[in-house]
Amino acid sequence: VTLFGPLFAPAAVREAVADEAWLRAMLDAEAALAAAQARTGVIPAAAARAIAAACAGAGFDPGAIGAAAPAAGNPVVPLVRALRAAVPADARVHVHRGATSQDILDTAAMLVARRALTPVLAELDGATRAAAALARAHAGTPMVARTLLQQALPTTFGLKAAGWLAALLDARARLAEIRDARLAVQLGGAAGTLAALGDRGEAVVAAFAAELGLAAPELPWHTARGRVAELGAALAVAAGAAGKVALDVVLLAQTEVGEVAEAAPGGSSALPHKRNPIAAIRARACAQRVPPLAALLLGAMAQEHERAAGAWHAEWEPLGDALALTGGAAGALRTSLEGLEVDGDRMRANLDSTGGLVLAERVALALGREAVDAAIERSANGTSFRDALLGVTDRLDAAALDELLDPVGYLGAAEPFIERALARLDRELT
Amino acid sequence: VTLFGPLFAPAAVREAVADEAWLRAMLDAEAALAAAQARTGVIPAAAARAIAAACAGAGFDPGAIGAAAPAAGNPVVPLVRALRAAVPADARVHVHRGATSQDILDTAAMLVARRALTPVLAELDGATRAAAALARAHAGTPMVARTLLQQALPTTFGLKAAGWLAALLDARARLAEIRDARLAVQLGGAAGTLAALGDRGEAVVAAFAAELGLAAPELPWHTARGRVAELGAALAVAAGAAGKVALDVVLLAQTEVGEVAEAAPGGSSALPHKRNPIAAIRARACAQRVPPLAALLLGAMAQEHERAAGAWHAEWEPLGDALALTGGAAGALRTSLEGLEVDGDRMRANLDSTGGLVLAERVALALGREAVDAAIERSANGTSFRDALLGVTDRLDAAALDELLDPVGYLGAAEPFIERALARLDRELT
Amino acid sequence: VTLFGPLFAPAAVREAVADEAWLRAMLDAEAALAAAQARTGVIPAAAARAIAAACAGAGFDPGAIGAAAPAAGNPVVPLVRALRAAVPADARVHVHRGATSQDILDTAAMLVARRALTPVLAELDGATRAAAALARAHAGTPMVARTLLQQALPTTFGLKAAGWLAALLDARARLAEIRDARLAVQLGGAAGTLAALGDRGEAVVAAFAAELGLAAPELPWHTARGRVAELGAALAVAAGAAGKVALDVVLLAQTEVGEVAEAAPGGSSALPHKRNPIAAIRARACAQRVPPLAALLLGAMAQEHERAAGAWHAEWEPLGDALALTGGAAGALRTSLEGLEVDGDRMRANLDSTGGLVLAERVALALGREAVDAAIERSANGTSFRDALLGVTDRLDAAALDELLDPVGYLGAAEPFIERALARLDRELT
Amino acid sequence: VTLFGPLFAPAAVREAVADEAWLRAMLDAEAALAAAQARTGVIPAAAARAIAAACAGAGFDPGAIGAAAPAAGNPVVPLVRALRAAVPADARVHVHRGATSQDILDTAAMLVARRALTPVLAELDGATRAAAALARAHAGTPMVARTLLQQALPTTFGLKAAGWLAALLDARARLAEIRDARLAVQLGGAAGTLAALGDRGEAVVAAFAAELGLAAPELPWHTARGRVAELGAALAVAAGAAGKVALDVVLLAQTEVGEVAEAAPGGSSALPHKRNPIAAIRARACAQRVPPLAALLLGAMAQEHERAAGAWHAEWEPLGDALALTGGAAGALRTSLEGLEVDGDRMRANLDSTGGLVLAERVALALGREAVDAAIERSANGTSFRDALLGVTDRLDAAALDELLDPVGYLGAAEPFIERALARLDRELT
Repeated sequence: VTLFGPLFAPAAVREAVADEAWLRAMLDAEAALAAAQARTGVIPAAAARAIAAACAGAGFDPGAIGAAAPAAGNPVVPLVRALRAAVPADARVHVHRGATSQDILDTAAMLVARRALTPVLAELDGATRAAAALARAHAGTPMVARTLLQQALPTTFGLKAAGWLAALLDARARLAEIRDARLAVQLGGAAGTLAALGDRGEAVVAAFAAELGLAAPELPWHTARGRVAELGAALAVAAGAAGKVALDVVLLAQTEVGEVAEAAPGGSSALPHKRNPIAAIRARACAQRVPPLAALLLGAMAQEHERAAGAWHAEWEPLGDALALTGGAAGALRTSLEGLEVDGDRMRANLDSTGGLVLAERVALALGREAVDAAIERSANGTSFRDALLGVTDRLDAAALDELLDPVGYLGAAEPFIERALARLDRELT
Repeated sequence: VTLFGPLFAPAAVREAVADEAWLRAMLDAEAALAAAQARTGVIPAAAARAIAAACAGAGFDPGAIGAAAPAAGNPVVPLVRALRAAVPADARVHVHRGATSQDILDTAAMLVARRALTPVLAELDGATRAAAALARAHAGTPMVARTLLQQALPTTFGLKAAGWLAALLDARARLAEIRDARLAVQLGGAAGTLAALGDRGEAVVAAFAAELGLAAPELPWHTARGRVAELGAALAVAAGAAGKVALDVVLLAQTEVGEVAEAAPGGSSALPHKRNPIAAIRARACAQRVPPLAALLLGAMAQEHERAAGAWHAEWEPLGDALALTGGAAGALRTSLEGLEVDGDRMRANLDSTGGLVLAERVALALGREAVDAAIERSANGTSFRDALLGVTDRLDAAALDELLDPVGYLGAAEPFIERALARLDRELT
Repeated sequence: VTLFGPLFAPAAVREAVADEAWLRAMLDAEAALAAAQARTGVIPAAAARAIAAACAGAGFDPGAIGAAAPAAGNPVVPLVRALRAAVPADARVHVHRGATSQDILDTAAMLVARRALTPVLAELDGATRAAAALARAHAGTPMVARTLLQQALPTTFGLKAAGWLAALLDARARLAEIRDARLAVQLGGAAGTLAALGDRGEAVVAAFAAELGLAAPELPWHTARGRVAELGAALAVAAGAAGKVALDVVLLAQTEVGEVAEAAPGGSSALPHKRNPIAAIRARACAQRVPPLAALLLGAMAQEHERAAGAWHAEWEPLGDALALTGGAAGALRTSLEGLEVDGDRMRANLDSTGGLVLAERVALALGREAVDAAIERSANGTSFRDALLGVTDRLDAAALDELLDPVGYLGAAEPFIERALARLDRELT
Repeated sequence: VTLFGPLFAPAAVREAVADEAWLRAMLDAEAALAAAQARTGVIPAAAARAIAAACAGAGFDPGAIGAAAPAAGNPVVPLVRALRAAVPADARVHVHRGATSQDILDTAAMLVARRALTPVLAELDGATRAAAALARAHAGTPMVARTLLQQALPTTFGLKAAGWLAALLDARARLAEIRDARLAVQLGGAAGTLAALGDRGEAVVAAFAAELGLAAPELPWHTARGRVAELGAALAVAAGAAGKVALDVVLLAQTEVGEVAEAAPGGSSALPHKRNPIAAIRARACAQRVPPLAALLLGAMAQEHERAAGAWHAEWEPLGDALALTGGAAGALRTSLEGLEVDGDRMRANLDSTGGLVLAERVALALGREAVDAAIERSANGTSFRDALLGVTDRLDAAALDELLDPVGYLGAAEPFIERALARLDRELT
């Protein structure tokens, strides 16, 4: 546990991108490579078993390997050295056979990504279900819609939450698509030809992918970094979807708005009365940090020839950070939404606070824009909008006007929109 | 035509994102909205026809509308004013009915994107086919693979081009997917409820989408900006794929490498002998500019409530720029690749220039790493690697060694990899 | 005037970065180069006069030059061609003497920057003075400070505005520093040695700088791009400072807060009652767009050898955009602040709305945290904080408590802080 | 030591931004605050001594504090709790007196920055001196200048290194300026008024700054984040300057260019002959990662009211990463340059490899562009440029032509430019 870590990601996500997880993934890649080569007759089965046994061991220290990495330029070189030292002498030559450091590190990155996506998606699903629960529970809770942060028209809190839900489902679908279709093993050998495997290159790639449950790419992708960049972008979209919801929560929780509160708001050392929506705040902080990482990964696609002199190395930590922070955004949002206290009375009070002005569009449709403009002008000096309207028109009596000014009667397609979003949840997240 | 514009995008792409194209798209959205409302009985068919006629007219000046935009915060407000003035008096009330500025601007953005993607994808396809032609023509052209910009092992220029091809196909597939599935109309009215359309909101949305050939979203997406952000990211991935190829071209065209040259290299005012690979250079410049725009769009997902107070406005120009620059990267790359002159002799000479050292891996597999290390040490003082090898081992005679040092015999899966990439091209781009 | 342009920058700023301004700057650079070479005896004075006369002419069309730029890779090559055609035959050889395209384009970029900084700083100064006027006028206007968007403690609107002022002064000082010290001519010739100028290279650089009123650099800086990157970063800081103020304005203008309003708020086509703080919204949109441009310029420092193959070209438009958008942020903020309507009564009402809870820190200092916590607990069921306090302690009578709960008595150093900021304004912006 | 850490920063830099360093800085801030308050009579001297003693202790665990941070939203709340528990009962009330969490965390960030800048600047100075040594040693080593990666004209390796030197000096000067002038304590209390300190707020700020050796700001800067953003930008500029040099090293070290090699190149597990310029590659990887972090910090200037709900929190880790990676870029570059092996013979051979074409500009100045163009055309079929020139002109005999084609005679101001850069080093870095 580190000083800042827990603020920005749940434990399961942090563990999935920690040093130990990377090391484990690299060892899993080496073991799977040996197994694939044994299955395709490249190396003896006994050697593969010995390598697997060594890889399963705990004798590899991330710190020691990290300390030796700068001289080689990456941690795989010292790891292979340590692995060779850990296997029986006759298996040594079969370790890392025909592979290059990048094969192991890229494959490990894909494993780390797949493994980390499990808790990341779990948090995202949690937030999504929480949004859905709010949409369902508050389909009939009127509140004011705000555009450009000004009160605009009536809506329902259910529709607002349904909008959150739809965006989260989109983000999750794309992440799942990438996890299932784009996370592929890397195996090309030093030049991308797999020359050291003779005519068994393709077969080994297929077996390697099968061992690890990753996709088998059509060609090695050492300097075709679309997979990494797309993953980074999809994480940023997911974090962005979570961040938007968190922004709404923070705005709704403002003292002057007071429509929602978190179940466990943060206190303040100095101010005993504060009820800070701290989970939403953490979600926003996480979400804000992912787009620059995605930009890094997108920019790092400019990789030279058959291995990049820097841009490849620049990917490793930001990819881990992007996974962690997206998990952090989703997890913090889940915390925020799962315990969200919704104050329907305050919503109603805010909706009514302008004395019907938020129904101005409806009144204009019924009475014409001129009447509305005249009434708004009159109401500047204290008269209520309702009374001002009665003064500028005789086309409606008070009762008819009150019906017109009832926000509940002017909710349009809010309900069917909510139903659509919930139906989609049922289809996609069972 | 502007001073810098042609350097960074082909004319068709620039036109597709120009002011006139945006204005046209906004008018098309207004016309389609009226048509959809006529079809669903919201407004009279005659009004819709009148509106369509006015929208088809040429009397709208982007400059005048732009000049009036700051006061309203967006160009739709003055456009609607101008459109109302251009229709017969009885159609006026039916213009922009139940819609909000964002409905029109977002729908227009989707139209601009779809229309711009036609030339963007055409350029990308051109570059892709050119890469495929190089992969096919040079499947048997050996060259040296370079890792970390050091000569590593033999490969073929065909395999290098096949790697480019695969990355371009990936990028294109994703862009086409977004064009077909994610570009959707926006229609929610001022609050996202479509309240002004009563119970016909959903029907109007469906008809509106059908009119424009865009997708109908499940809910309004005014502050769920995943569609825009995903598009920006996919553009950055495509630009990145093009930029990587351009980087390789620039590196291969270096005076000291000399393996490729562009058909129409740029000259220099000062240096009469220069042959600058200017198309590849332009592709790189374009490619480099897209990730920051994608980061902007990803970051702009943080939008408040039912309409953002700034983040929405921040999207418009960067989205157009991202489309233009991606088209620019693809177009310049296409120019570069379509006329690429490949110097197979120079490739062979470079491959041979280290006297067989690039076969060191193969020799090590045959003779052991120790022999290779010893020979490398010996060859430091001028002896060729081949002769040094003969001096350190007697396990191979000269003829056998020469076979071992023949790069053409150490190309692994280069050929089948090329075939896979070409087969995919045939499947995806017919 | 373009469709979106006026939303994102005032006219003077847009003109300063427009095509014509770039062209003018390039011609000014060519004329100054000739003048400098005449002064140092490199070319005849008559030739320099002829070149100056041609450069002063209007016969250069940005569109035509732009159309010819892609083939050469930059617009200077066709411009020099056109300039040579425009001078008498015997002056032709003296045009662009010893220079390379980059010398002219980089010098023009510095001129464009310096010229654009005049209106940019004018807008920034306007916003700064407006902030100062608010700080001065409202030094005695109490309002509530909000942390994490929750009401926290009393402050004054004057102190809030003084904080804006200080940040704007910082940003302005840095921009002025860069304008005065870092905008330098570029002159190195094709390789950075000025070989074509023999032993007069240094003298020509000095004269060239003197002609244009730019700094003379110690060495050519063709691939040492710190100047451009620092400028981009300083613009982003200035835009960020403006964006923060605009964010506060938007938040204070929320319907539920209502403490400020813009003088000319934007209306809505659909919603007659809306009073959107549209200038602040535009400032936010502009501000949000500059950091990605700064990131582009910072990332583009990776330039190869003596002229970059893409990264240099990638700078041109983003630099112009960064200048324009920073001017846009400052200009829109100025509009917002100069007409800002401040509602002191509403500020007071919001400050009082929690019944003294925002004085909890002060009460805790006087009575201990335990008493405050107990009172807060009691006040949950409807009792006012004041009455609850009277119930939990007998250490203070009602009068003493009311004094403690008077926000005006708990403003700490607000006043001296305001004075410091205003004194700094007087020192720096006279 | 972590798996990836050593690749991206030297140990001293990593330690300076590690958890323990942040914790130490926060404790130092608390101790200094107490000392400042004792000195100004706010709290008893004995309490300040007790607090200082507790802060000096080792009983604070970053992990435990980190684990408690999410609930509070930042690590200061649990730290203050732990600190109160560690002091005698009568000092407890004087801990963190009148301060808010942000005061401590921001001041700690400034301390971390100042402390980290010591090793960062040491690495940068090392790289700078190494560049200077190369400039001095190779003032007379001719090589070819390359523009757009094509051979252009003669230069010297000394001038190339002098260009590196000038850029590094610029970057260093700006970082030192920020360290000395912009790193300031933060002290405003919960609302920025220092209300809890009564009329002693300003005095306490001054004493607090004096205790820590940081600047005293004019006003609290809780949501005026220019200091943080400027620091981030200056780090990105420094990293960018280092990255440019590293890019040149990587390009010069290409097998086909071979003009430089690192003293301790990285080997390859698969390829025994590889000599990878791994230090320069690491420098590039580091450098590439800083601009996105700077963009984050610039974008995070949009902070709400008196404490931001997310953007503040988003700064912490990226600021540490930017410091570490800039130190990493500088440190790796230093390693690369300090041991750089420069192959003057290879430089000369490359310079001569085009048979004098790189002197084409000089020949054109002497004989006219037409003669050069004709000779270049002739030389396409195998004739040397020299012989072709003799064939197209009789204005020069062979000896005069050979003098014209001698690159050493066409170096312009290379030497004085080198002297200027070295003189500046002597002035600025003694």
